[in-house]
Amino acid sequence: MASIARLAGVSAPTVSRVLNGRAGVSTETRRQVESLLREHGYRRPATMEPAPSVEVVFYGLESYLAVSIMRGVEEVVRRRDFAVGFTEVRGRAALERPWTDQLLARRPIGVIAAHSYFTPQEYAALAAGGIPLVALDPSGVPPDGVPAVGSANWSGGVAAARHLLELGHRRIAVIGGPVESLIARARLDACRATLDAAGVPLDGRFLRTGRFFFEDGLDLGRGLLRLTDPPTAVLCGNDLQALGVYEAARRAGLAIPHDLSVVGFDDLECVQWCGPPMTTVRQPFDEMGATAARLVLALAAGESPVHTRLELPATLVVRESTAPPARP
Amino acid sequence: MASIARLAGVSAPTVSRVLNGRAGVSTETRRQVESLLREHGYRRPATMEPAPSVEVVFYGLESYLAVSIMRGVEEVVRRRDFAVGFTEVRGRAALERPWTDQLLARRPIGVIAAHSYFTPQEYAALAAGGIPLVALDPSGVPPDGVPAVGSANWSGGVAAARHLLELGHRRIAVIGGPVESLIARARLDACRATLDAAGVPLDGRFLRTGRFFFEDGLDLGRGLLRLTDPPTAVLCGNDLQALGVYEAARRAGLAIPHDLSVVGFDDLECVQWCGPPMTTVRQPFDEMGATAARLVLALAAGESPVHTRLELPATLVVRESTAPPARP
Repeated sequence: MASIARLAGVSAPTVSRVLNGRAGVSTETRRQVESLLREHGYRRPATMEPAPSVEVVFYGLESYLAVSIMRGVEEVVRRRDFAVGFTEVRGRAALERPWTDQLLARRPIGVIAAHSYFTPQEYAALAAGGIPLVALDPSGVPPDGVPAVGSANWSGGVAAARHLLELGHRRIAVIGGPVESLIARARLDACRATLDAAGVPLDGRFLRTGRFFFEDGLDLGRGLLRLTDPPTAVLCGNDLQALGVYEAARRAGLAIPHDLSVVGFDDLECVQWCGPPMTTVRQPFDEMGATAARLVLALAAGESPVHTRLELPATLVVRESTAPPARP
Repeated sequence: MASIARLAGVSAPTVSRVLNGRAGVSTETRRQVESLLREHGYRRPATMEPAPSVEVVFYGLESYLAVSIMRGVEEVVRRRDFAVGFTEVRGRAALERPWTDQLLARRPIGVIAAHSYFTPQEYAALAAGGIPLVALDPSGVPPDGVPAVGSANWSGGVAAARHLLELGHRRIAVIGGPVESLIARARLDACRATLDAAGVPLDGRFLRTGRFFFEDGLDLGRGLLRLTDPPTAVLCGNDLQALGVYEAARRAGLAIPHDLSVVGFDDLECVQWCGPPMTTVRQPFDEMGATAARLVLALAAGESPVHTRLELPATLVVRESTAPPARP
């Protein structure tokens, strides 16, 4: 580094600033130093200490949303020159060390768990490591002391149901997520309460629940469409279920929204491209990621944030999968 | 740490092993140490050195594929207890430091650029930092000395065209990607060559090119379907363009595959859920990520890999968007 500095006619700290991406070097000097470093085949020393990192842990389903979440986290974390780490823990080989051990071995300054299926042992292992943890979009209630960032599932469910009522639907079905998931319950209960309040109580035959998967939406949707007096609209627990209902309608020769209105929940990137573009409740995954990142950085800095259970707004996005019912 | 060790009746190195996720501690001891650490409110010291990281850089379009790529990279990198960093560089505010500076400031041991739009200055800045760089799925040819991992775009294009010919299509349109993209050219030229070789030369009116976006597929698809003698099948440059053609068909009241066969390229996760599930050419993004990770780790270890330009197979996945033509 000293010889590069000599050749460039600058100080060694200037060369160091170029190598570490720091400001305070003119473009011309930077180019000259870069060119000398390349010519002399500079290699980063193995001993150079890496930047601290915040790790985001995903599991299965949540991976569809991973890019939006990662973008939000990175937007905040990069301003501190920290790295954003990525881990997907579904499908790990049984012979591997537990992912919590692997995570501890990387010594992050904080962990964001975009992962609904933590076991108490996993929470305990991370807590014992002294690493601040924030749960993102948890489908249950995390243990005491684990801060959480989610979205307003109940309000989102109300907005979705109200939209269909305002279009004139009265035969509205609800496909809920897994019964053990509290976020799924919040969405479903909100739909039911909104229908009740409007004097259009949910018909028991129109209520179905299943996993948050495409296949479940397809099966449950087919069941609903086979009823002698089928619904004119379906509120789904998430977008994947709604895509399954799209496929059920297509196989039954029904056009969306003319013959059937469908509302999703999440606003996955791809639902704007499905035929027709989907009306759905948008969870602000990027902002949820950014909020979780600010929270975990504050905890890592030893601060005690006032609010440690945050719900961001979930908003209805009206596209082309909903319309007034063609038949009463 | 010493006092925790005393309380647990174990050695200080044992406590350290628990904190760092290392093996060699019985489950019972681990639980006991974890419980003591929690009770005593252990906090990870700010001075603890983070693990080295491999950074993956995305830009715009490639983000749709990000999760598959990240999974592949992580699968390899985590076995070394290194972290996998994520950066998305599209849409950075103009006032920010250049992303290359931010990246250098994080001092990764290697960089994987899943990013087709590097400028020569950006390559130069990373090269000068002495950080090994591997280009993943580059749409052009990276500068000399930059190793690259891609997929066999030409063979994939051949397989797609051959599939439509075997189904009996003769009126086959091709929507290509941007003319300045070499991967787009490889796919398009392969389709044209395959049609030529089969004695079914590509009709000039059936050849269109555009960006790799949904909107371009929609516009170009509508143009093709408005022809007085429209094609019975369309080969698309990527899945987003193919989803646009789906929407063009839907708006024209045409059923896929009965009235129009459509083939994509990429195999995005969501195309299995679109109506109907899409026949496409699969790029093995997870394996491409894993291969790039192995390459960048070898370079970081000072090795000189024999092969530094690798192409993994791209394979046709037949789903339900292709069928024999209903009309000759």
